[in-house]
Amino acid sequence: MGLTPVAIVGASGYTGAELIRLLLQHPHVELVGLYARKSAGEPIRRVFPHLAQSRLIVEAFDADAIAARAKVVFCALPHGDSAVVVRQLHERGLTVLDLSADFRLRDPAEYARWYGHDGSPHPEPALLEQAVYGLPERHRERLRGARLVACPGCYPTSTILPLAPLLAAGLVRPDGIIVDAKSGVSGAGKSPSQGTHFAEIAEGIRPYKVAGTHRHTPEMEQELALAAGLPARDLHILFTPNLVPMTRGILACVYATPTDASRPASAYRDALVAAYADEPFITVVDPDQLPDTAHVRGSNRAHVGAWFDARSGRVLALGVIDNLVKGASGQAIQCMNLALGLPETAGLMGAPMFP
Amino acid sequence: MGLTPVAIVGASGYTGAELIRLLLQHPHVELVGLYARKSAGEPIRRVFPHLAQSRLIVEAFDADAIAARAKVVFCALPHGDSAVVVRQLHERGLTVLDLSADFRLRDPAEYARWYGHDGSPHPEPALLEQAVYGLPERHRERLRGARLVACPGCYPTSTILPLAPLLAAGLVRPDGIIVDAKSGVSGAGKSPSQGTHFAEIAEGIRPYKVAGTHRHTPEMEQELALAAGLPARDLHILFTPNLVPMTRGILACVYATPTDASRPASAYRDALVAAYADEPFITVVDPDQLPDTAHVRGSNRAHVGAWFDARSGRVLALGVIDNLVKGASGQAIQCMNLALGLPETAGLMGAPMFP
Amino acid sequence: MGLTPVAIVGASGYTGAELIRLLLQHPHVELVGLYARKSAGEPIRRVFPHLAQSRLIVEAFDADAIAARAKVVFCALPHGDSAVVVRQLHERGLTVLDLSADFRLRDPAEYARWYGHDGSPHPEPALLEQAVYGLPERHRERLRGARLVACPGCYPTSTILPLAPLLAAGLVRPDGIIVDAKSGVSGAGKSPSQGTHFAEIAEGIRPYKVAGTHRHTPEMEQELALAAGLPARDLHILFTPNLVPMTRGILACVYATPTDASRPASAYRDALVAAYADEPFITVVDPDQLPDTAHVRGSNRAHVGAWFDARSGRVLALGVIDNLVKGASGQAIQCMNLALGLPETAGLMGAPMFP
Amino acid sequence: MGLTPVAIVGASGYTGAELIRLLLQHPHVELVGLYARKSAGEPIRRVFPHLAQSRLIVEAFDADAIAARAKVVFCALPHGDSAVVVRQLHERGLTVLDLSADFRLRDPAEYARWYGHDGSPHPEPALLEQAVYGLPERHRERLRGARLVACPGCYPTSTILPLAPLLAAGLVRPDGIIVDAKSGVSGAGKSPSQGTHFAEIAEGIRPYKVAGTHRHTPEMEQELALAAGLPARDLHILFTPNLVPMTRGILACVYATPTDASRPASAYRDALVAAYADEPFITVVDPDQLPDTAHVRGSNRAHVGAWFDARSGRVLALGVIDNLVKGASGQAIQCMNLALGLPETAGLMGAPMFP
Repeated sequence: MGLTPVAIVGASGYTGAELIRLLLQHPHVELVGLYARKSAGEPIRRVFPHLAQSRLIVEAFDADAIAARAKVVFCALPHGDSAVVVRQLHERGLTVLDLSADFRLRDPAEYARWYGHDGSPHPEPALLEQAVYGLPERHRERLRGARLVACPGCYPTSTILPLAPLLAAGLVRPDGIIVDAKSGVSGAGKSPSQGTHFAEIAEGIRPYKVAGTHRHTPEMEQELALAAGLPARDLHILFTPNLVPMTRGILACVYATPTDASRPASAYRDALVAAYADEPFITVVDPDQLPDTAHVRGSNRAHVGAWFDARSGRVLALGVIDNLVKGASGQAIQCMNLALGLPETAGLMGAPMFP
Repeated sequence: MGLTPVAIVGASGYTGAELIRLLLQHPHVELVGLYARKSAGEPIRRVFPHLAQSRLIVEAFDADAIAARAKVVFCALPHGDSAVVVRQLHERGLTVLDLSADFRLRDPAEYARWYGHDGSPHPEPALLEQAVYGLPERHRERLRGARLVACPGCYPTSTILPLAPLLAAGLVRPDGIIVDAKSGVSGAGKSPSQGTHFAEIAEGIRPYKVAGTHRHTPEMEQELALAAGLPARDLHILFTPNLVPMTRGILACVYATPTDASRPASAYRDALVAAYADEPFITVVDPDQLPDTAHVRGSNRAHVGAWFDARSGRVLALGVIDNLVKGASGQAIQCMNLALGLPETAGLMGAPMFP
Repeated sequence: MGLTPVAIVGASGYTGAELIRLLLQHPHVELVGLYARKSAGEPIRRVFPHLAQSRLIVEAFDADAIAARAKVVFCALPHGDSAVVVRQLHERGLTVLDLSADFRLRDPAEYARWYGHDGSPHPEPALLEQAVYGLPERHRERLRGARLVACPGCYPTSTILPLAPLLAAGLVRPDGIIVDAKSGVSGAGKSPSQGTHFAEIAEGIRPYKVAGTHRHTPEMEQELALAAGLPARDLHILFTPNLVPMTRGILACVYATPTDASRPASAYRDALVAAYADEPFITVVDPDQLPDTAHVRGSNRAHVGAWFDARSGRVLALGVIDNLVKGASGQAIQCMNLALGLPETAGLMGAPMFP
Repeated sequence: MGLTPVAIVGASGYTGAELIRLLLQHPHVELVGLYARKSAGEPIRRVFPHLAQSRLIVEAFDADAIAARAKVVFCALPHGDSAVVVRQLHERGLTVLDLSADFRLRDPAEYARWYGHDGSPHPEPALLEQAVYGLPERHRERLRGARLVACPGCYPTSTILPLAPLLAAGLVRPDGIIVDAKSGVSGAGKSPSQGTHFAEIAEGIRPYKVAGTHRHTPEMEQELALAAGLPARDLHILFTPNLVPMTRGILACVYATPTDASRPASAYRDALVAAYADEPFITVVDPDQLPDTAHVRGSNRAHVGAWFDARSGRVLALGVIDNLVKGASGQAIQCMNLALGLPETAGLMGAPMFP
């Protein structure tokens, strides 16, 4: 069987670089094209010196040229810019893995509310229905053979993985959920800004976009409602993102109310064990261990766990991922593997880098 | 007026070093003695090279010698070790600022449960009644003239400051409170361990002692119940501490349920503004700003704020402090100032160090 | 005696913020004006939230208004922008502490070569002769009563302090000097760029501007030649700056050849001890200790030392400073104290912040 | 062809963990045994939670059991402990990759001087002659078929790679070489100590073991003398190691004197290009780029370069590696590949992790 030719649009950002790193190791695909506006014409080894071993040259985007060369495309563009490019590639018959937010929300009105400039509508609503939300642990069957995958955000991935099985099993209530998540700085991307300036970020921690203002909020609510068997708009969470002085990693601390406070404390972890028994990338940590983002860094793995707090009668569910891998590029490749009928773990079994 | 002679017992740890740094700048006291078991006989500039300008020599503990020389003593010993030393100094007529946990919990049974080896009782229960909990913003009047101050823990300080006024004003319910706090590594002290080893901690974040196992839990509950006008054991929180790859700083994210969800969203911040209008060390951040531990580093200041999240109908209260200053040594000096009748801000108005 | 009114031009950068932090603590001056183009009209507590306790408002630059209000001005502007502003303030009779590079090099041709756009000449050559190089440990007498002080760069300060006494005493040769210095990221200032973007800088170290391309090279050569009793252009060093993943601090490792390799190994440290015996801010570390930037952070102190390496017959001299304090704002205040006839250490004796 | 069975002795340290991470990805070997005193009996996923996907159990060392199971052994023990274990494995016919210092120095007297307790002699001098120094770029032919490989130290690897070709080509003089190297904290291993305690190390940089006291000095001298065609003891360097607040990576800045200062400045880089044209893991950076440890993190790659500084007439050579990969475990696997006749790059072509 020959190698599947794949291309990356938006190759000059961090998720682009991570796609390259991972795809260079993938046994079933060949990286045939890198596209990026700003760096067009430059060898990728000049854009990203850590990719010194690659001879690829970045090119300007050209949908026809891509279609002539590749069968699969990863789109790592900013939301808003992505939708049109995705449509152009999709209508040329390519399988598209979109890492932007443009096709994550099923309801175009929600997209307009959270992402539209002045409430402008979704640019490609017709494609929305074809898009599959790319969280294999929740939508594996729909991802097989999918032509358009909306890869999840990093915060939603870290939150849904530990929480959805508890909702699905009816162990916790869908109201009153609180998500306090902590992210490394690479989640803000490669463009410098005051908020990612080393001297301002190192040696401090701070929340940002609190009280219902972070755009990952509706994405989490959509998927958690689905897990709970509720209409999309009937579940509301309180989400607090925090910026941590580290480059990679997300820790989600999720607080929920049990449906039955007298249930054995072990029930919550048991539900995760049951849900993830056959999952190749998910580890439910031992009851005496705790997740740590350092334990998944550089890998497509997630560590999750759940504990009952007897004092308060609440449940604490925890999840850690590498935001650039399981929270972005690695998960996109996992979805590609499913979409193409390849082994789901192909190219993704590298162990985390510790320390 | 002459300078008040003060001594430090437990001078070789981080809170000891921070006491020295701050007291060397204090206009009304003179540092006359440093005591520590391990470093006895060494110049403090050898124990802590950053204190190169000090000529003080560390000595072995001797209650009589201290009483002959000092009027005030800071005890920066580990809990359990502290109580007996405090009693020896207290009965010699010294004013004692205890930075350990030994006199923080009013109920000796709670102390035995959380701190006792195999449930052994509090070593100095008679002194417990005399101890004043050293959070000036809550107990200022009782601290004036106090002979024994139990200085608060760092997590409680960062949590009580933004939350207590909301409870006291009846704006949030005392049940269902969740505290997700993030601490720098200096909170673990100076002794090396696997959990503070650079290579294990840098580039990662992780929770620890979750689900009601961290000893600061009952301390927070005691003070929050007091603010809410409840018996000490009638308020239970869910507390999650997280270890952040930075040296100093604590961010407390507190989640609470309003007593009236239809109240204006501004009511919560307004309550903080009202409570802290005359406080010299507390800043209620502007509604469009967010607290950041980097903004209080090295200072005795706290930045706090409160927001209503309309989606979930919950309140988010935030507090940041430097765990070694407002969370330990600085606050102890603030208490000393009150105990001695000095200006409360004496020696403590240094601005934070940023960046 | 009344307080001397002082102003800061360029208050919205890091050295500006550090001047504010230190001057707010200074017993003999009053901060009467803050000036900055970008932030004009904003309260400084909005520009720098860590300065929440200050009520000062940033204003647009106006030389007459400053002259009407202040007697001393700190100029913390970028080089090139500074010279004209300095001249305007100087001719209005103000004492000016210039933190830019504009008046550091005595030879205007050298300035043109290193700082001129396309070799354009020095903008204010007439003032150059009046400027005193603001390193008190080398030029103390000339700084007393000075009207214009050219405050040294951070790399030169960290390098000259451990090396100049060895040159001045004839212990090391002026040729073949190598300076390998390591700086925190705050030295690059407050403006974000790819080279100060957290994700690119954390968890790595790298040299930059190597092989005679960093602009601090001629400044070091000028002062080292002076110490050696040579004409300014007769001493050439090899200077390598490195960017370290930390915010503050510079470590200079200086390598030099002894004039007499058979001299006792202790001679080099002895020369530093002799040179700095009465210096309030300089510590020569014990022979069994080594300088660490963490030991001077936040303070105006320098730790220096010198060792003879018998294997290679070379001398290693080491110096550490906080680049924003002894390497910039603190040193400028030290110079102001000298210029005004105030106690040299006024406002500057705060101990370093460790950890 | 079947998989070669390999074992690791000393599996519970950082180089052990890194060997496991890399060997799990190796296409030609099977990891059949993990040995470590302290963790014997524990699943490796409990010792190192990032290895959650491995089912291996750590065992107590038993030379016969290892010989019955494996053909190749990696020894990642502390120096001194290693030699006897290596001998036991070697005499049982195993191919041994020793990551300790025990077989790196060819002269047992040098070993005794630098590593012996009170000058006690080398424990296994007979084996010394069979050991090959495991730097493939210098000793490739001797490594083919080798039965005992002494894997280089991390500082020597980062130093020899950029410098040895310049010495070998006669471009720089063997006297007066200065090595100022900067290392991440993981080089100190997994055992906690004051010198690796997060709060003491973060936000600071410091030299350690200066002036001829670091044990990697004679190792560098031995190999550099060999490159220069000199007897081992006829080349002496001045080596300064510095500890950087990051986990992984070493940057070596090497200063040397040209044999002919009038030679074109490009000659030094050209010599590196010529030496490394066919090397799979070495990149000579472009003349306008500079090495950065962040560009090789997690990989077996080295980036090197050389520049002539016209001001001082000296040469600057730079090298960066990941100390745990090219500086330890990755290089050991590269040596194993050569020793076994496998493709040299097998299992080692993973791209660096950036950011």
